[in-house]
Amino acid sequence: MTEIQIGTGLHADPGVILGYAPARGESRGLSLGPGARLRSGTVLYLGTRIGAGLETGHHVVIREDCVLGDDVSVWTGTVVDYGCRIGARVKIHANCYIAQYTEIGEDAFLAPGVTLANDLYPGQPSSAELMAGPAIGPGAQIGVNVTILPYVRIGAGALIGAGSVVSRNIAAGMVAYGNPAVVHGEVAGLTAIEHRVAPEPESASRYRLLNGVVRS
Amino acid sequence: MTEIQIGTGLHADPGVILGYAPARGESRGLSLGPGARLRSGTVLYLGTRIGAGLETGHHVVIREDCVLGDDVSVWTGTVVDYGCRIGARVKIHANCYIAQYTEIGEDAFLAPGVTLANDLYPGQPSSAELMAGPAIGPGAQIGVNVTILPYVRIGAGALIGAGSVVSRNIAAGMVAYGNPAVVHGEVAGLTAIEHRVAPEPESASRYRLLNGVVRS
Amino acid sequence: MTEIQIGTGLHADPGVILGYAPARGESRGLSLGPGARLRSGTVLYLGTRIGAGLETGHHVVIREDCVLGDDVSVWTGTVVDYGCRIGARVKIHANCYIAQYTEIGEDAFLAPGVTLANDLYPGQPSSAELMAGPAIGPGAQIGVNVTILPYVRIGAGALIGAGSVVSRNIAAGMVAYGNPAVVHGEVAGLTAIEHRVAPEPESASRYRLLNGVVRS
Repeated sequence: MTEIQIGTGLHADPGVILGYAPARGESRGLSLGPGARLRSGTVLYLGTRIGAGLETGHHVVIREDCVLGDDVSVWTGTVVDYGCRIGARVKIHANCYIAQYTEIGEDAFLAPGVTLANDLYPGQPSSAELMAGPAIGPGAQIGVNVTILPYVRIGAGALIGAGSVVSRNIAAGMVAYGNPAVVHGEVAGLTAIEHRVAPEPESASRYRLLNGVVRS
Repeated sequence: MTEIQIGTGLHADPGVILGYAPARGESRGLSLGPGARLRSGTVLYLGTRIGAGLETGHHVVIREDCVLGDDVSVWTGTVVDYGCRIGARVKIHANCYIAQYTEIGEDAFLAPGVTLANDLYPGQPSSAELMAGPAIGPGAQIGVNVTILPYVRIGAGALIGAGSVVSRNIAAGMVAYGNPAVVHGEVAGLTAIEHRVAPEPESASRYRLLNGVVRS
Repeated sequence: MTEIQIGTGLHADPGVILGYAPARGESRGLSLGPGARLRSGTVLYLGTRIGAGLETGHHVVIREDCVLGDDVSVWTGTVVDYGCRIGARVKIHANCYIAQYTEIGEDAFLAPGVTLANDLYPGQPSSAELMAGPAIGPGAQIGVNVTILPYVRIGAGALIGAGSVVSRNIAAGMVAYGNPAVVHGEVAGLTAIEHRVAPEPESASRYRLLNGVVRS
C-alpha cells in the first residue's frame, strides 16, 4: 500500500513534500489526519501515520514508520527519525533530533536542541540490531539542548534541566540536571518563577534573576 | 499595517520568503533595510524590523516582533524566535536557537549550535507570562554549542567556553565555562593563540595544541 | 575554472542547488562523483571536490574548498563549512556543524548534533589567521551532541560519549566522556550491548537498561 491519505483542511506551504519515499524497505502509505498546518521545507515520509492537527515549523523532516497522535507540534529544523511513537499533544521545539525507535508520551515537551541517542556504542556489531532511543514519559519537560542516552527511561512529569546529559533513568516527577544528570528534587517542590525574577523593563529580555543564579 | 518595505539592493535567492504571516497575533509589516543578502530557504516573518546589510545563510528563520540593527549576520539553520532585540553587527552562526525575548548587544558573536532558553520551569502556570531569554552584552563571545538559561545576563565582552551551560550571570570581561559555567579568569588575561599552537601542515586541521589540552 | 563536473547517475531532488557561488574568494569548479543521491534543500558550493556515492539528507549545506572521499553521507540539517577534508565512508548524521578546516579520517562516524569549533578565543586578533577545527581519526565514533574544541586531535577508533565537551587530545582506541571529557577506558574493553539491555516489547523504545544506568 503506497496510498497517501490526507485529512480535510490541510494548509501546506508551497514546496512541502508529502509522501517522500524512504531509502530503506519498500514504500508504504502516508496517513495524515485533518487540520494539518505544514510550513515551508517540511518533508513527511511514506510509511508514517499521523493524527489530526499536526503543526510543523519550517524545514522539518519526519521519517518513515512513525506513529504520531493528535495535535502534535514539531518546530523548525527538527528531524524525527524512523520508527518513533509520539503521543497526543507532544510539542517538539526547534532543531531537535529524535532518534530511531524513540517513545514520547502524551503532553511531553521537548525544548529546542534536544538530541536523543539510540546507539550505546556506535560501531559494535550488535549496534544496528539493538538500536533504540529513550522513552520519555507523559508530560515530561525536557530543557533546551539536553542530550538523552539510549534506553534511558524518563518518568511522567519529570523535568530535565537545560544542557543536561541524561545517562540514567529518572523517576516520575523528579527534577534532574547536570552532566551526568542527577536528581536534585521534585517538580512539586520548585519555587514559583514569579518569586525568582524581577522586571527589567528596558530590556527585550524582560526579567532578571533576583539572586543572579538559576542553579549551582 | 501589513506593508512590506524592502530597501534597495536586495539580493535574495529564489524561494526566499519575505513577510511570512505569523500564527499568533495579527499580521504586521516587515521592514528590511538596504543591501540584504538572503540565501535559499530563508524565511522572514511579518512584524519584524531589520536594519541595513542583513546577511543570512541557508534555511534561516527569523520570526515576528524582532528588531535587528544594521549589518547583522544569521547563518545556516538558525532560528530567531519572536520578540528579540539584536544589536548592530551581531553575528549568529549556524544551527543556533535564539529564544523569544532575547536581548543581544552590538558586536556580540554566537558560535554554531548556541541554544538559548526562556522558560525557567516549563509547565509551570506562570511560564507563558514570564517567558524571557537571556541578555547577552555587547561584544560578548559565546562558544559553540553553549546553552544559556533564561534571565541570565552576560556582561559586555565576556567569553563563554564551548559546550558550557550558563546558569548564572557572568560579569563583563570574564571567561567562564563548564556545566555549570563558572568564571575561570578574564578575557584580558588569555594567552595569545599563537603561543598555544604549532603548525601541522599535512592536516586540513592546520595546527595542533602545544600541550594537547585547551582547558581542564 | 568555474566548471561543474557531475558524475553519472545523479539522483537529485527538485530544488537541490549544485555550484552555489561562495561570497569569499573567486568562484571555482565543483566536482561531484558518480552515483550521488541528494535530497531536497541540499546546497553544494562551488570550489569543492566530492568522490563517488555522496548521499545527503534534506537541507544539507556543503561549503567551498572541501574535499570529500567516496561514499560519504551527510544527513539532514548538517552544515559542512569551508576548507574541510573528509575521508571515504565517513557518516555525518543530522544537525551537525563541521567547522572550517576540520579533518575527518576514513570511516569515522559523527552522531546527530555534533558541533565542532575552530576558534580558540573568538575575538582575538589572530583568530582569523589561526582558525582550525579538530582532527578526528579514522574510524572514530563521536556521540550525539558532542562538542569538540579547536585543534583537538582524536585518535583512530576512539569513542566519545554523548554530550561530551572534548577539550584535550584523546588517544586512539580510548573511550572518553564528560565535560570536560576524560578517558574512562578502552573501546576494546566495553561490555557488549546485549549484556546491558533487556527487551521492552510494548515500547517503541524496544529495550531497557538492565541496571538503569548507562554511565555515572
